[in-house]
Amino acid sequence: MVFTYPQKILFKHCDPAGIVFYPRYFEMINDCVEAFFAQIGFPFETLHKTASVPTAEISTRFTAPSRHGDHLILTLEATRLGRSSLGLEITASAGTEARFACTSTLVLVDATGRPLRWPDPMRAALTPYIRSRP
Amino acid sequence: MVFTYPQKILFKHCDPAGIVFYPRYFEMINDCVEAFFAQIGFPFETLHKTASVPTAEISTRFTAPSRHGDHLILTLEATRLGRSSLGLEITASAGTEARFACTSTLVLVDATGRPLRWPDPMRAALTPYIRSRP
Amino acid sequence: MVFTYPQKILFKHCDPAGIVFYPRYFEMINDCVEAFFAQIGFPFETLHKTASVPTAEISTRFTAPSRHGDHLILTLEATRLGRSSLGLEITASAGTEARFACTSTLVLVDATGRPLRWPDPMRAALTPYIRSRP
Amino acid sequence: MVFTYPQKILFKHCDPAGIVFYPRYFEMINDCVEAFFAQIGFPFETLHKTASVPTAEISTRFTAPSRHGDHLILTLEATRLGRSSLGLEITASAGTEARFACTSTLVLVDATGRPLRWPDPMRAALTPYIRSRP
Repeated sequence: MVFTYPQKILFKHCDPAGIVFYPRYFEMINDCVEAFFAQIGFPFETLHKTASVPTAEISTRFTAPSRHGDHLILTLEATRLGRSSLGLEITASAGTEARFACTSTLVLVDATGRPLRWPDPMRAALTPYIRSRP
Repeated sequence: MVFTYPQKILFKHCDPAGIVFYPRYFEMINDCVEAFFAQIGFPFETLHKTASVPTAEISTRFTAPSRHGDHLILTLEATRLGRSSLGLEITASAGTEARFACTSTLVLVDATGRPLRWPDPMRAALTPYIRSRP
Repeated sequence: MVFTYPQKILFKHCDPAGIVFYPRYFEMINDCVEAFFAQIGFPFETLHKTASVPTAEISTRFTAPSRHGDHLILTLEATRLGRSSLGLEITASAGTEARFACTSTLVLVDATGRPLRWPDPMRAALTPYIRSRP
Repeated sequence: MVFTYPQKILFKHCDPAGIVFYPRYFEMINDCVEAFFAQIGFPFETLHKTASVPTAEISTRFTAPSRHGDHLILTLEATRLGRSSLGLEITASAGTEARFACTSTLVLVDATGRPLRWPDPMRAALTPYIRSRP
């Protein structure tokens, strides 16, 4: 199962060259991850009362520029569910054209930053999004 | 030779967990790259009249959180100078503690987005920053 | 007639005090204005090919803090349609609680920054949103 | 006495029209206020352990656009020191050209958002920056 997140490219995302300024893509990626956790029943505004899911690493390849008014679809899949970590793959496209592909690793931590084991209900909610290998 | 860029962690960089919201790191990374090009004589505000240097890929590993008031030093080195591309490694630390390490590839393109060969003066200005392999 | 724009408060909007960092409100306000122009048939991505509508002045009063997860509704009304200018009032509330109230003036300008008379179709599209005085 | 804060206009500040996207000005204004409090001995990273100074209202008039590479000087003066509030006037110019002028009111609040009387040392540190009326 995948999670999809639509994002129109707005004026605020674009730079003087008329294309998305890439740090804004990371805000979109964060918004997509936040919307995904809300979708599976663990909205950040609740989760963050006792824990958080900082990004430990993220690698992104930008394959074509996006312009003001483009309608992007971000597609999120989990690639690996560890004891405290979650591997994600997020790709974005406009129509049939790929715009970026990103892999990241999140870690569930408590308020002091120490890794936490995913609670069983979160593990159960995340599992359907883990990509099965062909 | 390396280029260093100081960045105090400001209120605007931090999230409700009191640590830097990672998309803000990418703004800092972009500011560092912009300051580096200014330092070597090719400020973006001039370069961008005819060309630009979009980021084609970027991979970042966040090793420890940064907090409001921390004094980060970003250190930039070039790892590879291709025909139109430039590999960079940017690391950030506060005192002796590493905060993130990032590798990226920039590409020099013209106003239509087509790759351009680095002009000789830019190549000459970049060369001292290419890390020699041990 | 009024234009309404929903905005959930996301992680990225909030500061270490756990409330919206006020410059992020201005991004929301801009998004609301952009969505309004799209709604009335003049999306910024089209308009900006030949013109733009920079903000000449903006005054905002923040009456209560907004927190992560709050569901804001922004309500936009026009207060005055001049030759080249447009007065707006934008208010935001969460449920029955007001969060901010803002008045601003936009000006239609050409690519060189010179004021343009609102074209008749834009004037016609804006007119229903002008608040009638009681 | 006034406090001045230099700010070069960077790539990240500018929009597809090649001028500063106005919400970025509010980040600059916030950075200027943060630097001012650091200058007078009350850096936000310390102050925020027990209090904060949210902006209650802010009014800004943008008089000329700023472009990538411009060197702005922001000038901050206090206009009024109340029991818990502080009126500020911040203007920005590039050379002799004014770019924006802003008035705002900050309020010192405790961790629960309740107004606090300015402690005497802060009052003493702020007083020299209160503009004397002619």
